[in-house]
Amino acid sequence: MIPSEIIARKRDGIALSRQELTWFIEQFINNELTNSQMAAMLMAIYFKGMTEDETIFLVEAMINSGATLDFSGNKKYVADKHSTGGIGDKVSLILVPLLACIGMTVPMIAGRSLEFTGGTIDKLESIPGFKTNPTLEQFSAWVKLNGCAIIEQTQQICPVDNKLYSLRNVTATVPSIPLICSSIMSKKIAEGVQGLILDIKIGKGAFMKTIDQGKELGEWMYKIGKAFNLNTDIVFTSMDQPLGRFAGLRCEIFETMDCLNGNGPKDTMEVVLELGSRLILQAGLTDNIFSANDLLISHIENGTADAKFREMISCQGGDIEKCLSKVMKPEYEQSVTAYNDGFIHNMETEKIGWALVEMGCGHKLTHDELDYSAGIEFLAKTGDRVKKDDPVYRIFSANNAKLERAIEMLKSTFSISKNKPEFSLILDSSDVSL
Amino acid sequence: MIPSEIIARKRDGIALSRQELTWFIEQFINNELTNSQMAAMLMAIYFKGMTEDETIFLVEAMINSGATLDFSGNKKYVADKHSTGGIGDKVSLILVPLLACIGMTVPMIAGRSLEFTGGTIDKLESIPGFKTNPTLEQFSAWVKLNGCAIIEQTQQICPVDNKLYSLRNVTATVPSIPLICSSIMSKKIAEGVQGLILDIKIGKGAFMKTIDQGKELGEWMYKIGKAFNLNTDIVFTSMDQPLGRFAGLRCEIFETMDCLNGNGPKDTMEVVLELGSRLILQAGLTDNIFSANDLLISHIENGTADAKFREMISCQGGDIEKCLSKVMKPEYEQSVTAYNDGFIHNMETEKIGWALVEMGCGHKLTHDELDYSAGIEFLAKTGDRVKKDDPVYRIFSANNAKLERAIEMLKSTFSISKNKPEFSLILDSSDVSL
Repeated sequence: MIPSEIIARKRDGIALSRQELTWFIEQFINNELTNSQMAAMLMAIYFKGMTEDETIFLVEAMINSGATLDFSGNKKYVADKHSTGGIGDKVSLILVPLLACIGMTVPMIAGRSLEFTGGTIDKLESIPGFKTNPTLEQFSAWVKLNGCAIIEQTQQICPVDNKLYSLRNVTATVPSIPLICSSIMSKKIAEGVQGLILDIKIGKGAFMKTIDQGKELGEWMYKIGKAFNLNTDIVFTSMDQPLGRFAGLRCEIFETMDCLNGNGPKDTMEVVLELGSRLILQAGLTDNIFSANDLLISHIENGTADAKFREMISCQGGDIEKCLSKVMKPEYEQSVTAYNDGFIHNMETEKIGWALVEMGCGHKLTHDELDYSAGIEFLAKTGDRVKKDDPVYRIFSANNAKLERAIEMLKSTFSISKNKPEFSLILDSSDVSL
Repeated sequence: MIPSEIIARKRDGIALSRQELTWFIEQFINNELTNSQMAAMLMAIYFKGMTEDETIFLVEAMINSGATLDFSGNKKYVADKHSTGGIGDKVSLILVPLLACIGMTVPMIAGRSLEFTGGTIDKLESIPGFKTNPTLEQFSAWVKLNGCAIIEQTQQICPVDNKLYSLRNVTATVPSIPLICSSIMSKKIAEGVQGLILDIKIGKGAFMKTIDQGKELGEWMYKIGKAFNLNTDIVFTSMDQPLGRFAGLRCEIFETMDCLNGNGPKDTMEVVLELGSRLILQAGLTDNIFSANDLLISHIENGTADAKFREMISCQGGDIEKCLSKVMKPEYEQSVTAYNDGFIHNMETEKIGWALVEMGCGHKLTHDELDYSAGIEFLAKTGDRVKKDDPVYRIFSANNAKLERAIEMLKSTFSISKNKPEFSLILDSSDVSL
């Protein structure tokens, strides 16, 4: 096979065979074809898309590029959750211990902040001592011991995905649905899970700006899952405002603890319960959504969820008390206030995300140092009534210059209307198929 | 500027500015952006095309990547000829000295064989001692001395074109009209010529299989020429059969000498006279096509064209007598004969080209050694009457195994019909614009 001929076939809209795609990926892994050839292939895929079969062959080749985990000896339902990324989205942190409490096994491989969105791993690393990069053997042992663990993407699982992602990032080939879906799903399948709940974020603070885009993405994820016997349910939630009371790093650990103790903000808990219940139904642990909800709430009320979270953190080397003692003691803080009486609406969530990046809650460049103490408290959200000069955001940081820059960016991130705007958080849920 | 953002703009069909394209090419030359990024850009250009402005900015950036020649002190009309490539096309070799005789200055930078087509430089190198890679200063001196010279593409002129071409060749991004045209025209403009005659080859033995494809290519070439004050005329000629009596290397030098002495085959001379006359009209040396034709023929009849050719060869170090003494003394030769009585038609010219490559008249791999003695003599061509067992091709080579392989390839390259087929050589000529 000749690389340029395979690229030409893709360019001309001819579906590639399993043999061609597997060979192309293998040659790429072994450096037998150049990054330039893969870049041309990725751009051709951007324009011509991939068939369902091609996408499945690609996922297969990505999985085969590294190690896979196997929890099949486990009698519990092995599941994971994935979100497409948002602002203030700490749902994984709450859901992982909660699902472990109710009898699931949850081996989560989570991400870091990407562009304007927050990352679960960055938030966890705000807990002193917390380890996110164990060996796969250590990861498996933690999962077997506690029923759950959260680690970052490792070079051992789907290593070609890292290589592809770096290339896509510099060649304007990130926004391709088959490439996005194969990247996400290959890693989840390699984790050895039976079930997956996907939270596809839609709106101003999400990568998918419209529900139609989200549905298309969801449809592909569902089909890939089906091809690899991975049960996949999907919930579409709004990112037209940040999720919960806090966005940042350590402050989101604080909100996580609040949620696990029954004191969580209504919107964060709404997403936690929706995703958790769908996964409970998928696992067959209850037979309706109401009892699934009750099952989750009861494990918050009886304290087991909080205990499981502390267990997981401690097992991964983290000191949760030390973390909590540092929250709410920022070096600098300021407020952004309402410029008028009325109702908060039109929260420019992506801009809020970029202000958080500016403060060091995300990565502008790969090796930027994060500021775990920085963040925003949302004192009023979409639909809340405010009076002129009421604080809307409380912004805190360890660096006054960055704080000042963030304040400037945040001033124009909301408007105030005379009438109370509508806002729906859960946009759609799909039980089995789309 | 960020490379991936510029790639994304092209990908999304936004026309790039002069500043963006110039910057992108400069960064590529300076290795500040990767081959992968350029490969993604080239594939995006393949899909989205380029506007006229973008193509002109690209040509400008390619010219500025190297040195340019300047013959503006010269009182003669400075011109060049370019063909898009065919089989048996030795027109440049005949036309260059002929135009120099009638008072033009012709600084030609010619190509090597590409895929199934022959290359002027490879043919010239069959002349013992002939130098094709002087310094630009030496090239200019030769041109000033003799009125003409033919050299190969040099790293000094449009060096980025070489780098781009290597990349296009392995990333399935060769067949893009703006990329093809900018590659050809940038080099012609950098040569410092005032006028250009383009021979766009159409049909079975050409890269452009249809006249419509050829016209589109021509339209772009013309527009680029116009933007850089380069007078460009275009002739479309058929490659549905090889041009002339011979195809190969040294044997085409032999046919060149025949043509320069008034003994050339009718078809070769028809193309020489058409292209030459158009260029004479463009230069304003005569006021009609008939007197232009006469001007060319008279310089063949009076022997000055032959003398000028010998002068050029000798000036560039070549020994023409030594070359001619070797022609027609092949180590091995065989014939392919007519399988029936009738008229030759449907010559599969591309296949004939590949048989020539097999014999060592072209490059399968970049460093393949050529066989200057190899070639084909066409004893009958489209429309010629043959009897069963008449020789149609005489094939000669220094390597019997290669000769045998070529014979096998050549057997199925013509058919014989009962009725005499139609054949037109000159398909169209455009004086000024398309």
